[in-house]
Amino acid sequence: MTTSTNSEAGNKLICTVDVVLLSLSEGQLRVLLLKREREPFAGAWALPGGYVHIGEDQGCEDAAQRVLRQKAGLESPYLEQLASFSGPARDPRGWSVSVAYFALVPHPEEALPGQQWLPVDRLPQLPFDHGSIVATAVERVRSKSQYSSLPVHLCPEPFTISQLHAVYETLLGEPINTVSFRRKLDELAILEPVVGEKRTEGAHRPAQLYRVRAEFRQRLRLVGRGLNR
Amino acid sequence: MTTSTNSEAGNKLICTVDVVLLSLSEGQLRVLLLKREREPFAGAWALPGGYVHIGEDQGCEDAAQRVLRQKAGLESPYLEQLASFSGPARDPRGWSVSVAYFALVPHPEEALPGQQWLPVDRLPQLPFDHGSIVATAVERVRSKSQYSSLPVHLCPEPFTISQLHAVYETLLGEPINTVSFRRKLDELAILEPVVGEKRTEGAHRPAQLYRVRAEFRQRLRLVGRGLNR
Repeated sequence: MTTSTNSEAGNKLICTVDVVLLSLSEGQLRVLLLKREREPFAGAWALPGGYVHIGEDQGCEDAAQRVLRQKAGLESPYLEQLASFSGPARDPRGWSVSVAYFALVPHPEEALPGQQWLPVDRLPQLPFDHGSIVATAVERVRSKSQYSSLPVHLCPEPFTISQLHAVYETLLGEPINTVSFRRKLDELAILEPVVGEKRTEGAHRPAQLYRVRAEFRQRLRLVGRGLNR
Repeated sequence: MTTSTNSEAGNKLICTVDVVLLSLSEGQLRVLLLKREREPFAGAWALPGGYVHIGEDQGCEDAAQRVLRQKAGLESPYLEQLASFSGPARDPRGWSVSVAYFALVPHPEEALPGQQWLPVDRLPQLPFDHGSIVATAVERVRSKSQYSSLPVHLCPEPFTISQLHAVYETLLGEPINTVSFRRKLDELAILEPVVGEKRTEGAHRPAQLYRVRAEFRQRLRLVGRGLNR
C-alpha cells in the first residue's frame, strides 16, 4: 500500500462511482436501489456503487460497468456520465469524489432479492448525497429526451411506434403530436423494422415491430429541434 | 499521511482538477495555457490544474476556483463542470481522475508571463489528455451557446447588442438573424441597460450599453428553442 498524494494527516481521499439505473414501469420512471450490506449505512437502500479498483478498472466508466455487472447482473446497458459529486462531508469515510453515471434499461420481469425499483418522484431519504444524484440524473434524462434517442433504451424490444411514443410521453410528462413524433423518428434514423414481425394493438390493424439499430445501442443520436416543436 | 482506500501495492490514486478557461479575441475562441513549472511535463504548455487539497477544498468546484485564483489571478468567473477524465494512463504519476471544468471570461488586456491564449482550433499537442479535455469543452460551449446565455460571459462589459450578437455569431460560426436574436435576448431576460451610457458605432446613432444582471453572473439561463430557429 502506498499513500495517495492527495492524502493529508488523519484524512484520506476516496474515489467511487455511483450509477443511477433507470427504467419505466406502470407509467412511472423508476430507479434501482440496493440494500447496502456494509457500513456506512448498512441496511439502507442506496444506489449501486463502489470504489474504483485501480488495479482493474481502465477508467471510471469501466468501473461503473463493472458495478452494474457485479451488483445488478447487467451487461453493457446504455450508460452516460452524469457529473462528479465531491467534498469532505458526503461520505463518512473521508474526502470523497464520486463520478456518477446514469444507465437506462427496459424494466426487468422481477426484482432480485435486495433490489427494488422505486418511482423517482416518491423516493425516501437516501444515504450519502444519493437523493441529489438521482434528482440530477432525472432532470438530465428528461431534458435530453426532448431532442434525442435516449428514451428508446427504456423500451423492451421489439416495440411498436405507439409503444415508443407512450414512453416519450411518460418521460416528458406531456402529449406529443403523433405526426411530429414520427417525423422526428425518421430524422433520428435509429430504428430498423423486425422483418415479418407485427403486433395487434386493440382494434387496429397489426403494427410493425422495431428494434434499435446496433450502432445506436451505445451512442446517442440528437435532433436539431425538440421532439414536440 | 494515511493510505487511500483506493490504493494498491505499488500504485496510487490521484485526484486533480483541470480548467478550460476560454475567451474570445480577434474573432477566435481561445484557451489559456500555462507553462508547467514542475514534472511531469515541466516546460510544456498545459491547462491550469492541480491536486485537490482535501484539508482545504470543499469540493472539486472549490478546488477549480482556487486554481483559477492562484494560477490565473481570477476571482469567481462563470464556471461549470464539464466531465471527469480518468484511467491508469492519462497521468504518469498514477491512476488518476481529473474533474474538468470550463470557465468563460472577457479577453484580458495582456497575457502574464508564463501564460498564453491560443486559438482552440490551432492547438499544439498538449500533455496528459488536455487536448481531448479542450475539445470536449469547446463542443459543449458551442452547443450550449445555441440556446443559452453562456456567451455573455465572453463579452467585456458594458456592451452593445451588436457586440453581443457578434460574439454569438463567432461562437456558432454562422450568421444569426438580428430580429430573432433580439427576441431571444428578451426571452432570456439576463441583461440590464447601463443608465445614461451609450456608445457610437460607425455611422449609426449611439447604441445603448448593457451588462449582465447580477443574478445571472453565475447561473445559466436557457431558451426553449435554439437562437437561430
